[in-house]
Amino acid sequence: MKTNIDRINIPEISQELCDEIQQKLDNKAKPVGSLGKLEALAMRVAMIQNTLTPEFSNPVMLTVAADHGITAEGVSACPTEITWQQVLNFLNGGGGIGLFSRLYGLDLWVVDAGVNFDFPDHPKLINAKVANGSNNFLYEPAMSLQQCMKAFNNGREIVANFHEQGTNIIGFGEMGIGNTTPASALMSILCGIPVAECVGPGAGLDGAGVSHKARVIEQAICKQGISGSVFDVLARFGGYEIATIAGGMMEAAARQMIILVDGFITTSAMLVAQAMDRQVRDYSIFSHVSNEQGHRKMLEYLAADPLLDFDLRLGEGTGAAMAYPILQGAVAVLSKMTSFEEAQVVNTSHIRIEVKVND
Amino acid sequence: MKTNIDRINIPEISQELCDEIQQKLDNKAKPVGSLGKLEALAMRVAMIQNTLTPEFSNPVMLTVAADHGITAEGVSACPTEITWQQVLNFLNGGGGIGLFSRLYGLDLWVVDAGVNFDFPDHPKLINAKVANGSNNFLYEPAMSLQQCMKAFNNGREIVANFHEQGTNIIGFGEMGIGNTTPASALMSILCGIPVAECVGPGAGLDGAGVSHKARVIEQAICKQGISGSVFDVLARFGGYEIATIAGGMMEAAARQMIILVDGFITTSAMLVAQAMDRQVRDYSIFSHVSNEQGHRKMLEYLAADPLLDFDLRLGEGTGAAMAYPILQGAVAVLSKMTSFEEAQVVNTSHIRIEVKVND
Repeated sequence: MKTNIDRINIPEISQELCDEIQQKLDNKAKPVGSLGKLEALAMRVAMIQNTLTPEFSNPVMLTVAADHGITAEGVSACPTEITWQQVLNFLNGGGGIGLFSRLYGLDLWVVDAGVNFDFPDHPKLINAKVANGSNNFLYEPAMSLQQCMKAFNNGREIVANFHEQGTNIIGFGEMGIGNTTPASALMSILCGIPVAECVGPGAGLDGAGVSHKARVIEQAICKQGISGSVFDVLARFGGYEIATIAGGMMEAAARQMIILVDGFITTSAMLVAQAMDRQVRDYSIFSHVSNEQGHRKMLEYLAADPLLDFDLRLGEGTGAAMAYPILQGAVAVLSKMTSFEEAQVVNTSHIRIEVKVND
Repeated sequence: MKTNIDRINIPEISQELCDEIQQKLDNKAKPVGSLGKLEALAMRVAMIQNTLTPEFSNPVMLTVAADHGITAEGVSACPTEITWQQVLNFLNGGGGIGLFSRLYGLDLWVVDAGVNFDFPDHPKLINAKVANGSNNFLYEPAMSLQQCMKAFNNGREIVANFHEQGTNIIGFGEMGIGNTTPASALMSILCGIPVAECVGPGAGLDGAGVSHKARVIEQAICKQGISGSVFDVLARFGGYEIATIAGGMMEAAARQMIILVDGFITTSAMLVAQAMDRQVRDYSIFSHVSNEQGHRKMLEYLAADPLLDFDLRLGEGTGAAMAYPILQGAVAVLSKMTSFEEAQVVNTSHIRIEVKVND
């Protein structure tokens, strides 16, 4: 089967306004460069939006849920029914992501990409179910290529719809008991890092549990092999939420939206997306480095500089949501902060720090 | 002159509800401990407020401004009139802190603690001017003990007034051309760290300028000596905004308010306050580590774990303001997030991570 992923065209970010954006930042009533990383963030968003007055519209948090056949191997400390229970909880405004989306002004949508439960209709639930969970990838591919493609394209379509309704920034989160296992497998294969360095306790495995998880992944990789395209690897070792998120990220970048990346699982989807087209990273803000072993290494592999370091390991999109007010601040510096002239403050934009004093 | 600072009574934080708070956190619908530092923050705020449902009321940002006689020695890259110009800019909603206070919902008040300018009345300007700037501490004490005490007590009174109007969290910021010099001097003396490790470019000194600043501070310390109480040292090498902030911090802690500490200058005020009573730190949230050389070392000295690391070096309270939404998130986890029972999610609070996987 020929996949159609190579048809996604992610545009290069325009350098056209770079100098003007920098000049505008330097003319804000403050010492040049004194807002550090916020200025770099403002620059990036402005370049993506190709404007001197960037702004966010209709910010969306997309929390994608799925179940995983690999849980039959005892790789998670939690029972699988938590996946569907949490979906309902999020839809009722509960859980970490229900709380943070409301607090930080993100419009939360929950996607059923492959949960083993029949949900009643709900206005904020998007039905994109491909199957009632993935297969146990210790014995067979997690998804067929067709299923994987369907999940990937669902992600594209969902994001395209939001974009057409005016959304220009989208956070990705996930819910899926057992999904650190496919994420670790994908990481090991796509980054070329030994499995032992890619696994962690997830929602609460003990040391023996983590070792068992590593052995399961190693056996699965040994049995199924790592040949083929990134898409083949995604189908073999991934999961429905990861495939849907990867597709959503590709579409978001193609439409020049800002992508807010959350923790270990959503970053594994970014590993997939960037293996398809490195350009996708230019549209991505890495919100935080989590406390799940491997996430730091994933971020290093991606040369990403995460904004927050709070030892989070909840997923759902919670870290991405927390980064949103920071990004709002960054964008406001460029779009709304007073210039020297407006502030009637002596212009010091000619004064630039020449020594790098940080150690 | 006998100072009355020893009369400030900072209560110990009650441990009474610790177990109940932890139990409540553990019963939220998420893996135990999976919100990392946010849970530790929630615990701290709840302990300070001695409640299972902490909340913030009437959050205030206090940006305290003053001028500095030491600028006569060429220790700043910027002209001193920027101090008063920025005060007016902030009052008009401009500058970094005008912008961020509005964005993050903090009530910004600007304090004239010792600016060399006669301001017209303004509803958000607090006139607490002790003098038109401090003396040049290369030749004489920056403030007399009486002046320093007045500034310190002004800070106490201002904070007491806010507390009486219902404020239970207060951020401190500052504006004062030249004020990294007194902050570096105080740091060197109070932390016992060589001056060369306490100085940085401030608003934009070059390498030679930084070396000159260090020499000025070393000479001043040599001439004036470091004998006496912390209050004597504050009067000799400090500034009006630093003294006012130190007093404000002590009063805030005495009233069991949450203190949001900003960057290098406000942390130098915290060094003063904690030398008076170490207990003040228990009420303090260190918002960020700045890009000013020395701030990281100050924070290490205080055993502080700053929330954000954005290479900010603007001051004004900007870093403290950015930390506020994070704190709101932390408090909401404890006060508003659904429990396992409310969420109808299988309770996994018995599952606890036993391995520490971070390196």
